Amino acid sequence: MKSKFIVIEGLEGAGKTTAREVIVATLREQGIDDVVFTREPGGTPLAEQLRQLVKQGIEGEQVTDQAELLMLYAARVQLVETVIKPALARGAWVVGDRHDLSSQAYQGGGRGLDAQLMQTLRDAVLGDFRPDLTLYLDVTPEIGLSRARARGELDRIEQESLDFFARTRARYQALAAADASIRTIDATQTVSAVAEDIKHTLLQWLQEQHA
Amino acid sequence: MKSKFIVIEGLEGAGKTTAREVIVATLREQGIDDVVFTREPGGTPLAEQLRQLVKQGIEGEQVTDQAELLMLYAARVQLVETVIKPALARGAWVVGDRHDLSSQAYQGGGRGLDAQLMQTLRDAVLGDFRPDLTLYLDVTPEIGLSRARARGELDRIEQESLDFFARTRARYQALAAADASIRTIDATQTVSAVAEDIKHTLLQWLQEQHA
Repeated sequence: MKSKFIVIEGLEGAGKTTAREVIVATLREQGIDDVVFTREPGGTPLAEQLRQLVKQGIEGEQVTDQAELLMLYAARVQLVETVIKPALARGAWVVGDRHDLSSQAYQGGGRGLDAQLMQTLRDAVLGDFRPDLTLYLDVTPEIGLSRARARGELDRIEQESLDFFARTRARYQALAAADASIRTIDATQTVSAVAEDIKHTLLQWLQEQHA
Repeated sequence: MKSKFIVIEGLEGAGKTTAREVIVATLREQGIDDVVFTREPGGTPLAEQLRQLVKQGIEGEQVTDQAELLMLYAARVQLVETVIKPALARGAWVVGDRHDLSSQAYQGGGRGLDAQLMQTLRDAVLGDFRPDLTLYLDVTPEIGLSRARARGELDRIEQESLDFFARTRARYQALAAADASIRTIDATQTVSAVAEDIKHTLLQWLQEQHA
């Protein structure tokens, strides 16, 4: 099978790390061993520097929504062009912890940035490059944030209001409903039930690719 | 007179620092004392971090042209929204060492980035915000770079080829020819002749604003 780009999406505390492990194990069972991981924002030294600026901000300076968006796309284009596309081209599969859908949900939904700006930027930066499959882990902000909080200190984004995350989730859900390449997983379930759903969804999707 | 945004543009070694001093002295002679300086990329703590990434890059990583462009616009929107617009709003004049014309010339001309992308990004980020006056210091790459080299080690951008700077200069010249708010100064002259031209051009422009 041609190599694929699979993305894991969802709010903080949705269970993306566990999902990654399930995806890798499932791919390996199918004989797919050459898997490259990416995370966004980040995944290259430059993009990691931008991640740091986005997530920590600068002491005493309010990061404007537009600067945040542009830094995220700067990190994304750097990762896509120097890591993801070369990996796919040499035949590796790529599993990404977040990708463009995060910007659509957080900056477009959560921050309420102009839809036209978002669309324009995506077209300009990514062209028609899209993940083959996105697994969206759907969780309520309350559950997600309590899990994230249990992991330790919250970063600049994680300190946003519940309203912000409710708008982000609503945008995730709306975009998932409109796009067949995005499969929604109920991530409010127990870890083992979520893992089971992810495995089942991935296997079904792999089968569809063969058909 | 309503406060104004005056920008100094030109290749490396064109004499922008001297130009700034002449502009400030001339404004002061006219009774304009409240002047804010900016430089791009930079001018806020976040934007200075982005400047560092753009100018030094990351050891061993090739910065893509698109990531560079997006970082420059992230820095620009942060500076415009948090420094330049507030300064103008309180009645200060702003004198900028570089602004959007640099991206048009270096990234659009020098790097050859798509004109549609450049236009879209500018519209999305800046709307109709424009400098009131731009003084473009026109110098050959040979003269400019020899001056820049005399100042010390060259950064990532300054290490580009003469061809790159020739394309950048050609774009500067074309844009200056098409825009009445951009006045071209022959910066190949002696420092005192350049200073004289800047002062004369600025005084004439100030007079036009009163008329």
